[in-house]
Amino acid sequence: MKIQAPPGMRDFYPADMRLQNWLFDAWRRVSRSFGFSEYDGPIFEFLDLFTIKSGDEIVSQLFDFEDRGGRRFAIRPEMTPTLARMVAARANSLPRPIKWFSIPRMCRAEKPQRGRLREFYQWNADILGVDDVLADAEIIAVAVAFLREVGLTPEDVVVKLSSRPIATAVLASIGIEASQADRAFQLIDRYDKLGPNEFRRQWNEAYGPDVPGERLERYLTEASLEQCLDLVAAAGEQGVAARTQFESLLAHLESFGVMPFCKFDLRIVRGLGYYTGPVFEVFGRRSELRAVLGGGRYDDLTTMLDGPRVPGVGFGMGDAPMMELLKELGKLPELEEELDIFIIDADPQLFATVQELAAALRGHGLATDFSYKRVGVSKQFKQASARGARYALVVGSEYVERRELTVKNLERGEQIIVPADDLLRAPQEALQRV
Amino acid sequence: MKIQAPPGMRDFYPADMRLQNWLFDAWRRVSRSFGFSEYDGPIFEFLDLFTIKSGDEIVSQLFDFEDRGGRRFAIRPEMTPTLARMVAARANSLPRPIKWFSIPRMCRAEKPQRGRLREFYQWNADILGVDDVLADAEIIAVAVAFLREVGLTPEDVVVKLSSRPIATAVLASIGIEASQADRAFQLIDRYDKLGPNEFRRQWNEAYGPDVPGERLERYLTEASLEQCLDLVAAAGEQGVAARTQFESLLAHLESFGVMPFCKFDLRIVRGLGYYTGPVFEVFGRRSELRAVLGGGRYDDLTTMLDGPRVPGVGFGMGDAPMMELLKELGKLPELEEELDIFIIDADPQLFATVQELAAALRGHGLATDFSYKRVGVSKQFKQASARGARYALVVGSEYVERRELTVKNLERGEQIIVPADDLLRAPQEALQRV
Repeated sequence: MKIQAPPGMRDFYPADMRLQNWLFDAWRRVSRSFGFSEYDGPIFEFLDLFTIKSGDEIVSQLFDFEDRGGRRFAIRPEMTPTLARMVAARANSLPRPIKWFSIPRMCRAEKPQRGRLREFYQWNADILGVDDVLADAEIIAVAVAFLREVGLTPEDVVVKLSSRPIATAVLASIGIEASQADRAFQLIDRYDKLGPNEFRRQWNEAYGPDVPGERLERYLTEASLEQCLDLVAAAGEQGVAARTQFESLLAHLESFGVMPFCKFDLRIVRGLGYYTGPVFEVFGRRSELRAVLGGGRYDDLTTMLDGPRVPGVGFGMGDAPMMELLKELGKLPELEEELDIFIIDADPQLFATVQELAAALRGHGLATDFSYKRVGVSKQFKQASARGARYALVVGSEYVERRELTVKNLERGEQIIVPADDLLRAPQEALQRV
Repeated sequence: MKIQAPPGMRDFYPADMRLQNWLFDAWRRVSRSFGFSEYDGPIFEFLDLFTIKSGDEIVSQLFDFEDRGGRRFAIRPEMTPTLARMVAARANSLPRPIKWFSIPRMCRAEKPQRGRLREFYQWNADILGVDDVLADAEIIAVAVAFLREVGLTPEDVVVKLSSRPIATAVLASIGIEASQADRAFQLIDRYDKLGPNEFRRQWNEAYGPDVPGERLERYLTEASLEQCLDLVAAAGEQGVAARTQFESLLAHLESFGVMPFCKFDLRIVRGLGYYTGPVFEVFGRRSELRAVLGGGRYDDLTTMLDGPRVPGVGFGMGDAPMMELLKELGKLPELEEELDIFIIDADPQLFATVQELAAALRGHGLATDFSYKRVGVSKQFKQASARGARYALVVGSEYVERRELTVKNLERGEQIIVPADDLLRAPQEALQRV
């Protein structure tokens, strides 16, 4: 019986896995350089955990199931609910700031079709327990540090930045109260996808002809940061606070040296309901329709789980959109199979020695291998090259006579004779001689 | 609404994650030193993939579900079916030997109770495309290299070793044909758990009083390797072949230097049906009831999936039993939070400089952090220690006056003054001065 991989799921053959590990390593390296600690949660959670935050409509996007005890679970479609649960459970004992990152695998029940993955990874970084927008700036700096780490510049990518309080104040200036703002946020979030005509149609449907949607549209597309901030500051005390907070965020971004990547854009509001402060998304400059990262401040997440209030700010970056962007920009590395040493016998009788040497070199942490078949020396050299070995070690008559080995540097093509005992005592050093 | 973690699933808080990553890093390091390449597959597969190999009774141990298109899936409970599927799909293009490892996360629908995990990780290493028992010896050497890597000795652990052909020949010697051997394998597999009396009862129930179960029992408990091999060689041509194969395996294990860990034990047969050659399990010497690793040779796995025959040998080691054993033996490391540098301002006005320095040092890959609150110097030093920082960097008046920084080695308690430009150009070097 022949069985395929499930639709929308990926097999990671070694070449795919090397690339995937390259991405994961960069995510981990950058996270750690900013003092973040790694965490993870279960691959599935109680179904309720996901519906609390996102409502029942999310269930159609989940892989959910019951266990034999009738409990309902779902494979996680995002990490934030798990993070909120874990932090709420230890809110009183975790030292602040809580700087955590994770690289969870997760699933969404997408319709199987080209380019729609049902399983993916997402880098999550969050800072919790801090109200100060210093944390928001640092989270954005983490994202930018990764972009730099993989060779991207402000010519390649842009961090589009706004804030919920600013958007709220702009809406207030055209007569839309906070309690009526949800639909407006959804429409603003989809402005680029809808286009101006459809945006206007849906806007009129939602708010009627009395609310001046054109004025909002001007702010969405034409107004500068200063014009927006002036409008916001004119909207009373909350507007002034929103302006001060945003200016403080910009000053911190300046100090962290990441402003060249950032651009204010009122159209960024983030669709989901739980953001309360600054919000941001990262786009490729030449493919601005799909964000490769989205994040923002959420201050009420733990209270939804009956925990104490723990303010937070964080982002998620999916592996697939990021890899796609890097591919588009020609920034994916070529990663070949690598091996430190390939051991060759000049005589099948010496194979036991090959095995002993391999055991010793592997014990030193050197990636070492040999031919599984007793074939001629030149065939073994070919295998060494095919495996990407840096050095070949030949066990021949000089080993039998004087316990010496031939070491060949396969990159430079040069070779020397080395006493076996030198090699086994300090292999790194011995290899560097050739 | 308060929501717990699902029963039998683990949350990995940072301290747990450090330990988990320590284990994963050791698994990866050892696998790579033996020239293995990492791979992975999807978290769930078509349900059929698991029932082909293990029969329908496995369904009760699975978390299975349907998607909206009516396809039936299950979260993977083991990696071997995925490995077989992936290898069968590219059997003609993958260069041999195929030396692959993986650290999949997987789930089993255990009844939630203490110590029974529903989600776990399992290190898998396999060599495919090789009939020679050289591969079997190398797989065992990989397992032993890991045991050594985490500080275990032959006094702590034992690799119990047998082979299906030997067990088959022993059974033949008491009149049980290969076609009737399945039940006998199951009983031998459970000999230690059943105890002699229950074993005899079930044996008689299965094979009746005419088959000399006591003779088998003597071979299970008393006979030496030599006695077993003599018996096997007396069982005709297949027995002689089984003996030759096993002796060749032992010779390779000797060459790889892992024989001190290994012990022949006819009771090792591995319950599942698909093993065809050598089989082995690793036990703690003081807790021999539960294996921490199991593996063996399976030569027909890809043909079950309508692929060409690709012989293979491999093992699986679960994270939870291994961690438990290491804990029992006092071999788990103490892993504290670590940070390279904590930057301190002697004056809140200098905080922007702290941010700039942090950005630069992080850019050099150094794990760098600072206080989120503008507090006094001694409080910041306390935070630096709490975070496990190796160095503290103080930005004070000497920075304003001469662009110099105080660098304190927090381990040794000593400090020096360093020009900021030196530190930013080659931070590792500058830090080594103190």
